[in-house]
Amino acid sequence: MTGPIYARMAVIGCGLIGSSVIRAARAAGAVGEVAVADASEAARAQVVELGYADRVTADPAEAARGADLVVFAVPVMAMGEAARAAAPGLAPGITVTDVGSVKGAVAEALAAALPATVHIVPGHPIAGTEQSGPDAGFAELFQNRWTILTPQQRTDAPYQEAVERLTDFWTALGANVELMDASHHDLVLAVTSHLPHLIAYNIVGTAADLEGVTRGEVMKYSAGGFRDFTRIAASDPTMWRDVFLANKDAVLETLGRFTEDLQALSRAIRWGEGDKLFELFSRTRDIRRGIIAAGQESAAPNFGRDARAAPAPDTNRQQS
Amino acid sequence: MTGPIYARMAVIGCGLIGSSVIRAARAAGAVGEVAVADASEAARAQVVELGYADRVTADPAEAARGADLVVFAVPVMAMGEAARAAAPGLAPGITVTDVGSVKGAVAEALAAALPATVHIVPGHPIAGTEQSGPDAGFAELFQNRWTILTPQQRTDAPYQEAVERLTDFWTALGANVELMDASHHDLVLAVTSHLPHLIAYNIVGTAADLEGVTRGEVMKYSAGGFRDFTRIAASDPTMWRDVFLANKDAVLETLGRFTEDLQALSRAIRWGEGDKLFELFSRTRDIRRGIIAAGQESAAPNFGRDARAAPAPDTNRQQS
Repeated sequence: MTGPIYARMAVIGCGLIGSSVIRAARAAGAVGEVAVADASEAARAQVVELGYADRVTADPAEAARGADLVVFAVPVMAMGEAARAAAPGLAPGITVTDVGSVKGAVAEALAAALPATVHIVPGHPIAGTEQSGPDAGFAELFQNRWTILTPQQRTDAPYQEAVERLTDFWTALGANVELMDASHHDLVLAVTSHLPHLIAYNIVGTAADLEGVTRGEVMKYSAGGFRDFTRIAASDPTMWRDVFLANKDAVLETLGRFTEDLQALSRAIRWGEGDKLFELFSRTRDIRRGIIAAGQESAAPNFGRDARAAPAPDTNRQQS
Repeated sequence: MTGPIYARMAVIGCGLIGSSVIRAARAAGAVGEVAVADASEAARAQVVELGYADRVTADPAEAARGADLVVFAVPVMAMGEAARAAAPGLAPGITVTDVGSVKGAVAEALAAALPATVHIVPGHPIAGTEQSGPDAGFAELFQNRWTILTPQQRTDAPYQEAVERLTDFWTALGANVELMDASHHDLVLAVTSHLPHLIAYNIVGTAADLEGVTRGEVMKYSAGGFRDFTRIAASDPTMWRDVFLANKDAVLETLGRFTEDLQALSRAIRWGEGDKLFELFSRTRDIRRGIIAAGQESAAPNFGRDARAAPAPDTNRQQS
């Protein structure tokens, strides 16, 4: 690389993803200077202490001033306000992107808040942990993960160049980049991410309130499947509240389908229709094999997240 | 240890759990000889090749002959038939147990099929992987996992001694042993294991059939939460069909509660009630912290199952 892809990056909102973008970009030499804006005084103090930003401020416009890339990394429903606050600092022709988990609503909010002279290229890195805050980020978060960009319907050369440059940026951070229509993104993610989170939140809530089983027992015997759900259901509440509100239509649509299917499954159990259960359970197993075949995960038994406690493949799974 | 806890163990059904019991018992020196019965010729051939049994047969009675511990490790709905087949080989006073994920129905089936002279102590090790077969087992599977025993309501000394000896056996295999009423077991496991599996099977099925999103896309972007469900939904179809049929009442009861809660959540999304969503999502996060505090899992970011591909904590999680 002859030099950084962006001379100066401003990150508005420095939580898990914002701080990971900074760390990864610095590690890759993809940016020169880094400015951070965060509304939280505690977060700003943490960023200063961690020392990975050249400038830290409460004012998005101040952070954005002089930047050729501005990354909005606040919760989805806060994007519009953050963009309005940053707008006075944006120079014409620069690239503005975001990392929100919903793209349709965010693209609209950014377009409404920002001057027409900037190139808005909404984005979504499909990566994260259940941790949050400026100290939760790490440089490897995007390695071998997908980042989806949802460019506007524009064919002019400067905009195309902005999309290409942002693609190079995410590639430098280790991500595989895919371009997609915003509404298609929101449907795909409703299925692969938003619905799974909703279900996980729901089942953990149900288990906590169930009579006849104490919360202690639920925790104690969580290795039989439940624990995987608790991990997902420990994700940032603000972020996920916003995701469901901002992607309401696609989430409710897929949730409707899920509920229909669950009713059929419930009926099959009630009437002892073992063949129907077996057919579904065999089909879902094939899908898992498809994911493994697609290289999304290793087929070999992995030393899972409990590997330190017990050196056994996947011992927190099933048979329960 | 002055000698093995059981001089001769017979394992009826040699899949993931059966073979793990054998490997773990051998590693711990908890058994002298091991006999295996399996209905599948392919499985028997594999057991012979793997070389961990002293005798391999298709006939449960033959395997059981001379054993002081008989372990039934077949799918839950096959327990009764396996027990009837083994009954002629059982000597009076020996201990009979099982590893099924449902205890009420299995306890009944065993009691109905076996002579009153044997000590039936139903059991359930809460451990497993999504793999199956005689070659899927490993000696460490039960390390630091719970094994629940659901003894009969008997107070006579020989039976109490049988329970204690079986407790010693599982402890030697590395498990933490808990005694519990069979029906309470079935309710606890309905929440912590059976419902999570049902939900996982269902969501993977829903995703596979959804219009507008290809199966390839579902697989490609599964890192946002969905992938955890596919792992659970890859569990053995026969085993899980049997679990739902054998624990119908408790599963339908907890499923009913789950569905009620999901309707309320759906309504909150539809009406944009962000506060309700936030409240639930904060509460479930606390439950996760409870599990971590209870020592069921490490609080630190773990190098998860994808650690080999990308050395980053938990990169297959959330923010999506």
